Amino acid sequence: MTAGIYATRQKINTLLITKSFGGQMARKAVEIENFPGFEKISGLELIQKMEKHLKKRKIDIITDSVKEIKKVGKEFSVLTADKKQFQGKTLIVASGADPRPLEVSGEKEFIGKGVSYCVACDGPIYAGKTVAVVGGGNAGLEAALSLSKYAAKIYILEQGTQIKAEAIAQERVKEIKNIVVITQAALKKIQGQNFVESVIYEDGKSRKLITLDLQGIFVEIGSQPATGFVKGLVDFNKQDEIIVNPKTGETSTPGLFSAGDADDLPYKQIIIACGEGAKAAISASIYLQKNDRT
Amino acid sequence: MTAGIYATRQKINTLLITKSFGGQMARKAVEIENFPGFEKISGLELIQKMEKHLKKRKIDIITDSVKEIKKVGKEFSVLTADKKQFQGKTLIVASGADPRPLEVSGEKEFIGKGVSYCVACDGPIYAGKTVAVVGGGNAGLEAALSLSKYAAKIYILEQGTQIKAEAIAQERVKEIKNIVVITQAALKKIQGQNFVESVIYEDGKSRKLITLDLQGIFVEIGSQPATGFVKGLVDFNKQDEIIVNPKTGETSTPGLFSAGDADDLPYKQIIIACGEGAKAAISASIYLQKNDRT
Repeated sequence: MTAGIYATRQKINTLLITKSFGGQMARKAVEIENFPGFEKISGLELIQKMEKHLKKRKIDIITDSVKEIKKVGKEFSVLTADKKQFQGKTLIVASGADPRPLEVSGEKEFIGKGVSYCVACDGPIYAGKTVAVVGGGNAGLEAALSLSKYAAKIYILEQGTQIKAEAIAQERVKEIKNIVVITQAALKKIQGQNFVESVIYEDGKSRKLITLDLQGIFVEIGSQPATGFVKGLVDFNKQDEIIVNPKTGETSTPGLFSAGDADDLPYKQIIIACGEGAKAAISASIYLQKNDRT
Repeated sequence: MTAGIYATRQKINTLLITKSFGGQMARKAVEIENFPGFEKISGLELIQKMEKHLKKRKIDIITDSVKEIKKVGKEFSVLTADKKQFQGKTLIVASGADPRPLEVSGEKEFIGKGVSYCVACDGPIYAGKTVAVVGGGNAGLEAALSLSKYAAKIYILEQGTQIKAEAIAQERVKEIKNIVVITQAALKKIQGQNFVESVIYEDGKSRKLITLDLQGIFVEIGSQPATGFVKGLVDFNKQDEIIVNPKTGETSTPGLFSAGDADDLPYKQIIIACGEGAKAAISASIYLQKNDRT
Protein backbone atom coordinates (compact mmCIF):
# COMPACT_ATOMS: atom_id res chain seq x y z
CA MET A 1 0.00 0.00 0.00
CA THR A 2 2.85 2.40 0.76
CA ALA A 3 4.53 1.53 -2.54
CA GLY A 4 1.22 2.31 -4.27
CA ILE A 5 0.89 5.68 -2.53
CA TYR A 6 4.45 6.60 -3.47
CA ALA A 7 4.27 5.31 -7.06
CA THR A 8 1.14 7.34 -7.84
CA ARG A 9 2.71 10.46 -6.33
CA GLN A 10 5.46 10.00 -8.91
CA LYS A 11 2.71 9.96 -11.58
CA ILE A 12 3.50 6.40 -12.56
CA ASN A 13 0.54 4.56 -14.11
CA THR A 14 0.15 2.01 -11.37
CA LEU A 15 -1.75 -1.27 -11.27
CA LEU A 16 -2.00 -2.97 -7.89
CA ILE A 17 -2.92 -6.67 -7.86
CA THR A 18 -3.83 -8.21 -4.52
CA LYS A 19 -6.00 -10.94 -3.06
CA SER A 20 -6.83 -8.68 -0.15
CA PHE A 21 -5.32 -5.76 1.72
CA GLY A 22 -3.16 -5.88 4.79
CA GLY A 23 -1.65 -9.35 4.63
CA GLN A 24 -0.36 -10.37 8.03
CA MET A 25 -1.73 -7.20 9.66
CA ALA A 26 -5.21 -8.72 9.25
CA ARG A 27 -4.16 -11.68 11.39
CA LYS A 28 -2.70 -9.64 14.25
CA ALA A 29 -4.06 -11.13 17.44
CA VAL A 30 -3.60 -8.01 19.56
CA GLU A 31 -3.72 -4.32 18.87
CA ILE A 32 -0.73 -2.76 17.17
CA GLU A 33 1.14 -0.43 19.52
CA ASN A 34 4.33 0.20 17.57
CA PHE A 35 3.22 1.96 14.40
CA PRO A 36 4.22 5.57 15.12
CA GLY A 37 1.30 7.95 15.19
CA PHE A 38 -1.18 5.35 16.44
CA GLU A 39 -0.84 4.54 20.14
CA LYS A 40 -3.08 1.52 19.83
CA ILE A 41 -4.89 0.32 16.74
CA SER A 42 -6.24 -3.01 15.55
CA GLY A 43 -4.72 -4.55 12.46
CA LEU A 44 -8.01 -4.24 10.59
CA GLU A 45 -8.39 -0.58 11.50
CA LEU A 46 -4.86 0.26 10.35
CA ILE A 47 -5.48 -1.63 7.10
CA GLN A 48 -8.69 0.35 6.53
CA LYS A 49 -6.88 3.65 7.06
CA MET A 50 -4.10 2.72 4.66
CA GLU A 51 -6.54 1.31 2.11
CA LYS A 52 -8.61 4.51 2.22
CA HIS A 53 -5.40 6.54 1.84
CA LEU A 54 -4.32 4.44 -1.15
CA LYS A 55 -7.70 4.71 -2.86
CA LYS A 56 -7.52 8.52 -2.74
CA ARG A 57 -4.72 8.15 -5.24
CA LYS A 58 -5.21 7.58 -8.96
CA ILE A 59 -4.50 3.87 -9.01
CA ASP A 60 -5.99 0.78 -10.64
CA ILE A 61 -6.69 -2.00 -8.19
CA ILE A 62 -7.50 -5.57 -9.20
CA THR A 63 -8.62 -8.24 -6.74
CA ASP A 64 -6.86 -11.33 -7.98
CA SER A 65 -3.77 -13.35 -7.17
CA VAL A 66 -0.61 -13.50 -9.25
CA LYS A 67 0.36 -16.94 -10.51
CA GLU A 68 3.41 -16.24 -12.60
CA ILE A 69 5.59 -13.39 -13.80
CA LYS A 70 7.87 -13.50 -16.81
CA LYS A 71 10.25 -10.93 -18.20
CA VAL A 72 9.70 -10.53 -21.93
CA GLY A 73 12.35 -8.23 -23.32
CA LYS A 74 12.37 -5.27 -20.96
CA GLU A 75 8.76 -5.75 -19.87
CA PHE A 76 7.18 -7.83 -17.18
CA SER A 77 4.24 -10.06 -18.04
CA VAL A 78 1.95 -10.94 -15.16
CA LEU A 79 -0.47 -13.89 -15.25
CA THR A 80 -3.19 -14.08 -12.59
CA ALA A 81 -5.33 -16.86 -11.14
CA ASP A 82 -8.28 -15.45 -13.10
CA LYS A 83 -6.17 -16.01 -16.24
CA LYS A 84 -5.74 -12.31 -16.90
CA GLN A 85 -2.51 -10.93 -18.28
CA PHE A 86 -0.92 -7.58 -17.56
CA GLN A 87 2.24 -5.89 -18.81
CA GLY A 88 4.45 -3.53 -16.86
CA LYS A 89 7.71 -1.68 -17.51
CA THR A 90 8.60 -2.11 -13.89
CA LEU A 91 7.39 -4.35 -11.09
CA ILE A 92 7.27 -4.07 -7.33
CA VAL A 93 6.83 -7.28 -5.34
CA ALA A 94 5.24 -6.57 -1.97
CA SER A 95 3.52 -9.89 -1.45
CA GLY A 96 4.57 -10.38 2.16
CA ALA A 97 4.50 -13.71 3.87
CA ASP A 98 2.07 -16.47 4.78
CA PRO A 99 1.94 -18.39 8.07
CA ARG A 100 4.47 -21.19 8.24
CA PRO A 101 2.76 -24.58 8.72
CA LEU A 102 3.83 -27.01 11.46
CA GLU A 103 4.11 -29.95 9.07
CA VAL A 104 3.03 -32.50 11.65
CA SER A 105 0.56 -35.34 11.37
CA GLY A 106 -3.05 -34.15 11.55
CA GLU A 107 -2.34 -30.50 10.76
CA LYS A 108 -3.84 -30.35 7.27
CA GLU A 109 -6.67 -32.70 8.18
CA PHE A 110 -7.91 -30.44 11.00
CA ILE A 111 -7.58 -27.03 9.36
CA GLY A 112 -10.82 -25.25 10.23
CA LYS A 113 -11.65 -28.09 12.66
CA GLY A 114 -9.40 -26.99 15.49
CA VAL A 115 -6.25 -25.94 13.63
CA SER A 116 -6.02 -22.21 12.95
CA TYR A 117 -3.43 -19.70 11.75
CA CYS A 118 -5.40 -16.62 12.79
CA VAL A 119 -6.41 -15.78 16.36
CA ALA A 120 -8.06 -12.55 15.22
CA CYS A 121 -10.31 -14.61 12.92
CA ASP A 122 -11.00 -17.75 14.97
CA GLY A 123 -10.21 -16.86 18.61
CA PRO A 124 -13.79 -16.18 19.77
CA ILE A 125 -14.92 -19.68 18.66
CA TYR A 126 -12.89 -21.13 21.55
CA ALA A 127 -14.74 -19.46 24.42
CA GLY A 128 -14.45 -21.66 27.50
CA LYS A 129 -12.25 -24.21 25.70
CA THR A 130 -8.67 -25.37 26.15
CA VAL A 131 -6.28 -24.39 23.36
CA ALA A 132 -2.58 -24.42 22.55
CA VAL A 133 -0.53 -21.79 20.81
CA VAL A 134 2.48 -23.25 19.06
CA GLY A 135 5.39 -20.79 19.05
CA GLY A 136 6.99 -18.63 21.75
CA GLY A 137 7.83 -15.59 19.66
CA ASN A 138 5.98 -12.27 19.75
CA ALA A 139 3.15 -13.60 17.60
CA GLY A 140 2.70 -16.65 19.83
CA LEU A 141 2.56 -14.67 23.05
CA GLU A 142 0.27 -12.08 21.53
CA ALA A 143 -1.99 -14.87 20.33
CA ALA A 144 -2.09 -16.35 23.84
CA LEU A 145 -2.85 -12.95 25.39
CA SER A 146 -5.68 -12.42 22.96
CA LEU A 147 -7.05 -15.94 23.51
CA SER A 148 -6.99 -15.45 27.28
CA LYS A 149 -10.08 -13.28 26.85
CA TYR A 150 -12.02 -16.29 25.57
CA ALA A 151 -10.37 -19.61 26.32
CA ALA A 152 -10.44 -21.33 29.72
CA LYS A 153 -6.85 -22.49 29.45
CA ILE A 154 -4.03 -21.75 27.03
CA TYR A 155 -0.81 -23.67 26.59
CA ILE A 156 2.11 -21.99 24.85
CA LEU A 157 4.27 -24.68 23.28
CA GLU A 158 7.79 -23.50 22.46
CA GLN A 159 10.27 -25.90 20.89
CA GLY A 160 13.35 -23.99 22.10
CA THR A 161 14.70 -23.74 25.63
CA GLN A 162 13.32 -20.25 26.12
CA ILE A 163 10.63 -17.82 25.03
CA LYS A 164 11.91 -15.40 22.38
CA ALA A 165 9.18 -12.75 22.53
CA GLU A 166 9.98 -9.18 23.51
CA ALA A 167 10.12 -8.50 27.25
CA ILE A 168 6.85 -6.58 27.42
CA ALA A 169 4.86 -9.52 26.03
CA GLN A 170 6.59 -11.97 28.39
CA GLU A 171 5.66 -9.84 31.41
CA ARG A 172 2.04 -9.63 30.35
CA VAL A 173 1.85 -13.40 29.88
CA LYS A 174 3.22 -13.98 33.40
CA GLU A 175 0.39 -11.90 34.83
CA ILE A 176 -2.28 -14.15 33.34
CA LYS A 177 -3.07 -17.29 35.32
CA ASN A 178 -4.72 -19.42 32.64
CA ILE A 179 -1.67 -19.30 30.36
CA VAL A 180 0.81 -22.14 30.84
CA VAL A 181 4.17 -21.88 29.09
CA ILE A 182 5.85 -25.16 28.13
CA THR A 183 9.34 -24.92 26.64
CA GLN A 184 11.28 -27.68 24.87
CA ALA A 185 7.99 -29.00 23.58
CA ALA A 186 8.25 -30.51 20.10
CA LEU A 187 4.78 -31.06 18.68
CA LYS A 188 4.43 -34.48 17.08
CA LYS A 189 0.76 -35.10 16.33
CA ILE A 190 -2.67 -33.52 16.26
CA GLN A 191 -5.52 -35.96 16.74
CA GLY A 192 -9.28 -36.29 17.18
CA GLN A 193 -12.43 -37.64 15.58
CA ASN A 194 -14.11 -34.92 13.56
CA PHE A 195 -12.48 -32.09 15.51
CA VAL A 196 -9.19 -31.73 17.34
CA GLU A 197 -9.27 -33.51 20.71
CA SER A 198 -5.64 -33.66 21.75
CA VAL A 199 -2.02 -33.14 20.73
CA ILE A 200 1.11 -35.14 21.47
CA TYR A 201 4.45 -33.43 22.04
CA GLU A 202 7.88 -34.68 22.98
CA ASP A 203 9.37 -33.16 26.11
CA GLY A 204 12.96 -32.21 25.25
CA LYS A 205 14.24 -32.83 28.81
CA SER A 206 12.77 -36.27 29.51
CA ARG A 207 12.33 -37.36 25.86
CA LYS A 208 8.85 -38.55 26.90
CA LEU A 209 5.75 -38.17 24.73
CA ILE A 210 3.08 -36.15 26.49
CA THR A 211 -0.59 -35.81 25.53
CA LEU A 212 -2.56 -32.61 26.10
CA ASP A 213 -6.33 -32.66 25.81
CA LEU A 214 -7.54 -29.54 24.01
CA GLN A 215 -9.92 -28.31 21.34
CA GLY A 216 -7.85 -25.79 19.41
CA ILE A 217 -4.32 -25.26 18.09
CA PHE A 218 -3.11 -21.86 16.94
CA VAL A 219 0.02 -22.04 14.82
CA GLU A 220 2.36 -19.08 15.36
CA ILE A 221 5.79 -20.35 14.30
CA GLY A 222 6.58 -17.58 11.90
CA SER A 223 5.96 -17.08 8.27
CA GLN A 224 7.24 -18.02 4.87
CA PRO A 225 7.66 -15.50 2.08
CA ALA A 226 4.93 -15.48 -0.58
CA THR A 227 7.40 -15.46 -3.45
CA GLY A 228 6.57 -18.59 -5.47
CA PHE A 229 5.34 -16.54 -8.45
CA VAL A 230 8.77 -14.95 -9.03
CA LYS A 231 10.86 -18.10 -8.47
CA GLY A 232 13.56 -18.23 -11.12
CA LEU A 233 12.96 -14.61 -12.11
CA VAL A 234 14.89 -13.09 -9.20
CA ASP A 235 17.53 -14.26 -6.71
CA PHE A 236 16.29 -15.75 -3.43
CA ASN A 237 18.13 -16.56 -0.22
CA LYS A 238 17.85 -20.03 1.34
CA GLN A 239 14.52 -19.12 2.95
CA ASP A 240 13.03 -18.21 -0.46
CA GLU A 241 13.15 -14.53 0.48
CA ILE A 242 13.98 -12.06 -2.28
CA ILE A 243 17.49 -10.66 -1.91
CA VAL A 244 17.23 -6.86 -2.02
CA ASN A 245 19.53 -3.91 -1.86
CA PRO A 246 18.19 -2.55 1.43
CA LYS A 247 19.02 1.02 0.45
CA THR A 248 16.83 0.98 -2.66
CA GLY A 249 14.70 -2.18 -2.90
CA GLU A 250 16.54 -3.18 -6.08
CA THR A 251 16.81 -6.91 -6.77
CA SER A 252 19.02 -9.02 -9.04
CA THR A 253 16.57 -8.34 -11.91
CA PRO A 254 16.68 -4.82 -13.41
CA GLY A 255 13.27 -3.16 -13.16
CA LEU A 256 12.05 -5.57 -10.49
CA PHE A 257 11.90 -4.07 -6.99
CA SER A 258 10.82 -5.66 -3.77
CA ALA A 259 9.65 -4.50 -0.35
CA GLY A 260 8.34 -5.91 2.89
CA ASP A 261 8.23 -9.34 4.44
CA ALA A 262 8.90 -11.15 1.15
CA ASP A 263 12.45 -9.74 1.37
CA ASP A 264 15.62 -10.90 3.11
CA LEU A 265 15.66 -8.07 5.67
CA PRO A 266 16.01 -9.48 9.19
CA TYR A 267 13.25 -7.63 11.05
CA LYS A 268 9.64 -8.16 9.98
CA GLN A 269 7.72 -5.12 11.19
CA ILE A 270 4.86 -3.10 9.70
CA ILE A 271 6.64 0.25 9.93
CA ILE A 272 9.80 -1.21 8.37
CA ALA A 273 7.84 -2.77 5.50
CA CYS A 274 6.18 0.61 4.84
CA GLY A 275 9.57 2.31 4.65
CA GLU A 276 10.83 -0.33 2.23
CA GLY A 277 7.69 0.13 0.12
CA ALA A 278 8.47 3.82 -0.25
CA LYS A 279 12.06 2.99 -1.25
CA ALA A 280 10.92 0.51 -3.92
CA ALA A 281 8.49 2.98 -5.50
CA ILE A 282 11.05 5.80 -5.59
CA SER A 283 13.57 3.42 -7.16
CA ALA A 284 10.98 2.27 -9.73
CA SER A 285 10.38 5.90 -10.66
CA ILE A 286 14.10 6.55 -11.11
CA TYR A 287 14.35 3.37 -13.21
CA LEU A 288 11.51 4.54 -15.48
CA GLN A 289 13.11 7.97 -15.89
CA LYS A 290 16.39 6.37 -16.94
CA ASN A 291 14.68 3.94 -19.31
CA ASP A 292 11.90 4.58 -21.80
CA ARG A 293 8.98 5.97 -19.81
CA THR A 294 6.36 6.28 -22.52
CA MET B 1 10.51 8.85 18.10
CA THR B 2 10.02 5.45 16.44
CA ALA B 3 13.33 4.22 17.87
CA GLY B 4 12.11 5.36 21.31
CA ILE B 5 8.81 3.52 20.93
CA TYR B 6 10.59 0.34 19.86
CA ALA B 7 13.37 0.55 22.47
CA THR B 8 10.91 0.87 25.35
CA ARG B 9 8.85 -2.03 24.03
CA GLN B 10 12.05 -4.09 24.37
CA LYS B 11 12.17 -2.94 28.03
CA ILE B 12 15.41 -1.07 27.49
CA ASN B 13 15.95 1.78 29.95
CA THR B 14 15.82 4.55 27.41
CA LEU B 15 16.87 8.19 27.63
CA LEU B 16 15.89 10.40 24.72
CA ILE B 17 17.75 13.70 24.34
CA THR B 18 16.35 16.23 21.88
CA LYS B 19 16.13 19.96 21.34
CA SER B 20 12.60 19.52 20.04
CA PHE B 21 10.46 16.86 18.39
CA GLY B 22 9.91 16.28 14.74
CA GLY B 23 12.99 17.83 13.15
CA GLN B 24 12.36 18.60 9.51
CA MET B 25 8.71 17.52 9.76
CA ALA B 26 8.11 20.74 11.72
CA ARG B 27 9.32 22.77 8.76
CA LYS B 28 7.13 21.02 6.16
CA ALA B 29 5.54 23.76 4.07
CA VAL B 30 2.59 21.69 2.87
CA GLU B 31 0.57 18.89 4.36
CA ILE B 32 2.08 15.44 4.37
CA GLU B 33 0.24 13.10 2.01
CA ASN B 34 2.61 10.14 1.87
CA PHE B 35 2.71 8.81 5.41
CA PRO B 36 0.53 5.69 5.15
CA GLY B 37 -2.57 5.83 7.33
CA PHE B 38 -2.89 9.61 7.14
CA GLU B 39 -4.32 10.86 3.85
CA LYS B 40 -3.37 14.43 4.66
CA ILE B 41 -1.77 15.73 7.82
CA SER B 42 0.32 18.75 8.73
CA GLY B 43 3.87 18.17 9.92
CA LEU B 44 3.02 19.58 13.33
CA GLU B 45 -0.02 17.36 13.73
CA LEU B 46 1.92 14.22 12.81
CA ILE B 47 4.66 15.22 15.26
CA GLN B 48 2.07 15.67 18.01
CA LYS B 49 0.60 12.24 17.34
CA MET B 50 4.01 10.57 17.43
CA GLU B 51 5.09 12.55 20.50
CA LYS B 52 1.92 11.55 22.36
CA HIS B 53 2.50 7.93 21.30
CA LEU B 54 6.10 8.06 22.51
CA LYS B 55 5.17 9.61 25.85
CA LYS B 56 2.76 6.74 26.57
CA ARG B 57 5.87 4.61 26.84
CA LYS B 58 8.13 4.46 29.90
CA ILE B 59 10.88 6.72 28.65
CA ASP B 60 13.01 9.53 30.06
CA ILE B 61 13.03 12.61 27.86
CA ILE B 62 15.44 15.49 28.28
CA THR B 63 15.18 18.75 26.34
CA ASP B 64 18.76 19.58 25.57
CA SER B 65 21.19 19.30 22.69
CA VAL B 66 24.11 16.91 22.49
CA LYS B 67 27.55 18.49 22.10
CA GLU B 68 29.85 15.52 22.16
CA ILE B 69 29.84 11.77 22.53
CA LYS B 70 32.80 9.66 23.59
CA LYS B 71 33.18 5.93 23.92
CA VAL B 72 34.79 5.09 27.26
CA GLY B 73 35.48 1.37 27.40
CA LYS B 74 32.25 -0.23 26.24
CA GLU B 75 30.07 2.69 27.32
CA PHE B 76 29.05 5.87 25.60
CA SER B 77 29.42 9.16 27.43
CA VAL B 78 27.18 11.98 26.27
CA LEU B 79 27.87 15.65 27.01
CA THR B 80 25.05 18.14 26.45
CA ALA B 81 24.89 21.90 25.85
CA ASP B 82 23.57 22.29 29.43
CA LYS B 83 26.80 20.59 30.55
CA LYS B 84 25.06 17.46 31.71
CA GLN B 85 26.64 14.06 31.29
CA PHE B 86 24.90 10.76 30.61
CA GLN B 87 26.17 7.20 30.18
CA GLY B 88 24.69 4.53 27.95
CA LYS B 89 25.59 0.96 27.04
CA THR B 90 24.24 1.57 23.57
CA LEU B 91 23.46 4.66 21.54
CA ILE B 92 21.07 5.43 18.71
CA VAL B 93 21.75 8.54 16.64
CA ALA B 94 18.55 9.84 15.06
CA SER B 95 19.49 13.48 14.86
CA GLY B 96 18.28 14.04 11.31
CA ALA B 97 19.40 16.95 9.21
CA ASP B 98 19.38 20.75 9.27
CA PRO B 99 18.65 23.05 6.32
CA ARG B 100 21.65 23.58 4.09
CA PRO B 101 22.63 27.25 3.93
CA LEU B 102 23.17 29.07 0.61
CA GLU B 103 26.53 30.45 1.65
CA VAL B 104 26.12 33.65 -0.33
CA SER B 105 26.78 37.23 0.65
CA GLY B 106 24.04 38.67 2.85
CA GLU B 107 22.53 35.35 3.90
CA LYS B 108 23.64 35.32 7.53
CA GLU B 109 23.12 39.06 7.92
CA PHE B 110 19.45 38.88 6.92
CA ILE B 111 18.39 35.75 8.81
CA GLY B 112 15.06 36.71 10.40
CA LYS B 113 15.04 39.88 8.30
CA GLY B 114 13.90 38.34 5.04
CA VAL B 115 15.96 35.15 4.94
CA SER B 116 14.10 32.07 6.22
CA TYR B 117 14.55 28.31 6.22
CA CYS B 118 10.97 27.54 7.24
CA VAL B 119 7.88 28.42 5.24
CA ALA B 120 5.62 26.78 7.81
CA CYS B 121 7.07 29.17 10.42
CA ASP B 122 7.52 32.42 8.50
CA GLY B 123 5.30 32.17 5.40
CA PRO B 124 2.34 34.19 6.70
CA ILE B 125 4.59 37.22 7.39
CA TYR B 126 4.94 37.72 3.64
CA ALA B 127 1.26 38.34 2.83
CA GLY B 128 1.05 40.54 -0.28
CA LYS B 129 4.85 40.58 -0.73
CA THR B 130 7.20 39.29 -3.40
CA VAL B 131 9.41 36.38 -2.35
CA ALA B 132 11.83 33.88 -3.83
CA VAL B 133 12.23 30.22 -3.02
CA VAL B 134 15.73 28.97 -3.72
CA GLY B 135 15.70 25.32 -4.82
CA GLY B 136 13.60 23.38 -7.34
CA GLY B 137 13.31 20.07 -5.49
CA ASN B 138 10.20 18.83 -3.72
CA ALA B 139 10.78 21.06 -0.72
CA GLY B 140 11.21 24.14 -2.92
CA LEU B 141 8.04 23.56 -4.92
CA GLU B 142 6.07 22.72 -1.80
CA ALA B 143 7.35 25.92 -0.21
CA ALA B 144 6.23 27.93 -3.25
CA LEU B 145 2.80 26.27 -3.25
CA SER B 146 2.37 27.07 0.41
CA LEU B 147 3.57 30.67 -0.06
CA SER B 148 1.14 31.18 -2.93
CA LYS B 149 -1.60 31.42 -0.31
CA TYR B 150 0.03 34.57 1.10
CA ALA B 151 2.56 36.16 -1.21
CA ALA B 152 1.67 38.29 -4.24
CA LYS B 153 4.45 36.81 -6.35
CA ILE B 154 6.83 33.91 -5.90
CA TYR B 155 10.00 33.18 -7.84
CA ILE B 156 11.43 29.68 -7.75
CA LEU B 157 15.16 29.91 -8.40
CA GLU B 158 16.74 26.65 -9.49
CA GLN B 159 20.45 26.45 -10.23
CA GLY B 160 20.17 23.41 -12.52
CA THR B 161 18.71 23.21 -15.99
CA GLN B 162 15.49 21.61 -14.77
CA ILE B 163 13.15 21.23 -11.83
CA LYS B 164 13.77 18.02 -9.91
CA ALA B 165 10.57 17.83 -7.84
CA GLU B 166 8.16 14.91 -8.23
CA ALA B 167 5.68 15.22 -11.10
CA ILE B 168 2.67 15.92 -8.90
CA ALA B 169 4.28 19.00 -7.36
CA GLN B 170 5.38 20.29 -10.79
CA GLU B 171 1.83 20.05 -12.12
CA ARG B 172 0.43 21.91 -9.17
CA VAL B 173 2.97 24.70 -9.56
CA LYS B 174 2.06 25.12 -13.23
CA GLU B 175 -1.55 25.72 -12.26
CA ILE B 176 -0.68 28.71 -10.09
CA LYS B 177 -0.21 31.98 -11.92
CA ASN B 178 1.79 33.96 -9.38
CA ILE B 179 4.62 31.40 -9.30
CA VAL B 180 7.45 32.06 -11.75
CA VAL B 181 10.06 29.33 -12.23
CA ILE B 182 13.56 30.46 -13.23
CA THR B 183 16.08 27.70 -13.99
CA GLN B 184 19.86 28.08 -14.35
CA ALA B 185 19.69 30.83 -11.74
CA ALA B 186 22.78 30.94 -9.51
CA LEU B 187 22.11 33.19 -6.52
CA LYS B 188 25.01 35.53 -5.84
CA LYS B 189 23.92 38.13 -3.31
CA ILE B 190 21.15 39.12 -0.92
CA GLN B 191 20.94 42.84 -0.24
CA GLY B 192 18.94 45.55 1.51
CA GLN B 193 19.07 48.16 4.25
CA ASN B 194 17.58 46.70 7.43
CA PHE B 195 15.55 44.07 5.63
CA VAL B 196 15.98 42.18 2.36
CA GLU B 197 15.14 44.37 -0.63
CA SER B 198 16.56 42.44 -3.58
CA VAL B 199 18.71 39.53 -4.74
CA ILE B 200 21.20 39.19 -7.56
CA TYR B 201 21.54 35.97 -9.52
CA GLU B 202 23.60 34.95 -12.52
CA ASP B 203 21.63 33.65 -15.47
CA GLY B 204 23.40 30.47 -16.65
CA LYS B 205 22.45 30.98 -20.30
CA SER B 206 23.46 34.63 -20.81
CA ARG B 207 25.98 34.81 -17.93
CA LYS B 208 24.36 38.14 -17.04
CA LEU B 209 23.71 39.30 -13.49
CA ILE B 210 20.03 39.91 -12.86
CA THR B 211 18.43 41.76 -9.94
CA LEU B 212 15.04 40.77 -8.52
CA ASP B 213 13.25 43.11 -6.14
CA LEU B 214 11.68 41.16 -3.34
CA GLN B 215 11.15 41.08 0.42
CA GLY B 216 11.74 37.46 1.34
CA ILE B 217 14.00 34.51 0.48
CA PHE B 218 13.14 30.96 1.48
CA VAL B 219 16.08 28.60 1.30
CA GLU B 220 15.13 25.08 0.24
CA ILE B 221 18.32 23.61 -1.22
CA GLY B 222 18.34 20.46 0.83
CA SER B 223 19.77 19.57 4.15
CA GLN B 224 22.97 18.63 5.86
CA PRO B 225 23.19 15.81 8.38
CA ALA B 226 23.28 16.89 12.03
CA THR B 227 26.18 14.61 12.88
CA GLY B 228 28.90 16.96 14.20
CA PHE B 229 28.67 15.52 17.72
CA VAL B 230 29.76 12.03 16.59
CA LYS B 231 32.52 13.14 14.22
CA GLY B 232 35.53 10.87 14.71
CA LEU B 233 33.47 8.36 16.69
CA VAL B 234 31.85 6.72 13.68
CA ASP B 235 32.53 6.49 9.93
CA PHE B 236 30.97 9.17 7.71
CA ASN B 237 30.59 9.36 3.94
CA LYS B 238 31.78 12.46 2.06
CA GLN B 239 28.56 14.31 2.91
CA ASP B 240 29.15 13.75 6.65
CA GLU B 241 26.34 11.22 6.73
CA ILE B 242 26.75 8.22 9.01
CA ILE B 243 27.47 5.05 7.05
CA VAL B 244 24.98 2.39 8.20
CA ASN B 245 24.19 -1.19 7.46
CA PRO B 246 20.74 -0.53 5.97
CA LYS B 247 19.45 -3.91 7.14
CA THR B 248 20.12 -3.23 10.80
CA GLY B 249 21.17 0.37 11.45
CA GLU B 250 24.58 -0.83 12.66
CA THR B 251 27.49 1.57 12.17
CA SER B 252 31.27 1.15 12.17
CA THR B 253 31.21 1.53 15.98
CA PRO B 254 29.88 -1.47 17.94
CA GLY B 255 26.93 -0.46 20.09
CA LEU B 256 26.29 2.72 18.11
CA PHE B 257 23.27 2.56 15.82
CA SER B 258 21.89 5.19 13.53
CA ALA B 259 18.58 5.91 11.78
CA GLY B 260 16.96 8.54 9.63
CA ASP B 261 18.21 11.52 7.67
CA ALA B 262 21.58 11.59 9.43
CA ASP B 263 22.40 8.36 7.56
CA ASP B 264 23.79 7.62 4.11
CA LEU B 265 20.55 6.14 2.76
CA PRO B 266 19.60 7.79 -0.55
CA TYR B 267 15.92 8.64 0.01
CA LYS B 268 15.01 11.06 2.79
CA GLN B 269 11.39 10.35 3.67
CA ILE B 270 9.47 10.34 6.96
CA ILE B 271 8.13 6.81 6.56
CA ILE B 272 11.59 5.50 5.63
CA ALA B 273 13.20 7.21 8.63
CA CYS B 274 10.56 5.63 10.90
CA GLY B 275 11.35 2.18 9.53
CA GLU B 276 15.06 2.73 10.07
CA GLY B 277 14.35 3.89 13.64
CA ALA B 278 12.61 0.60 14.37
CA LYS B 279 15.57 -1.32 12.91
CA ALA B 280 18.08 0.58 15.05
CA ALA B 281 16.14 -0.06 18.28
CA ILE B 282 15.71 -3.77 17.56
CA SER B 283 19.45 -4.01 16.78
CA ALA B 284 20.29 -2.14 20.00
CA SER B 285 18.20 -4.63 21.96
CA ILE B 286 19.98 -7.59 20.34
CA TYR B 287 23.33 -5.93 21.09
CA LEU B 288 22.40 -5.51 24.76
CA GLN B 289 21.28 -9.14 25.00
CA LYS B 290 24.60 -10.30 23.58
CA ASN B 291 26.62 -8.02 25.84
CA ASP B 292 26.18 -7.32 29.55
CA ARG B 293 22.68 -5.98 29.97
CA THR B 294 22.65 -5.17 33.70
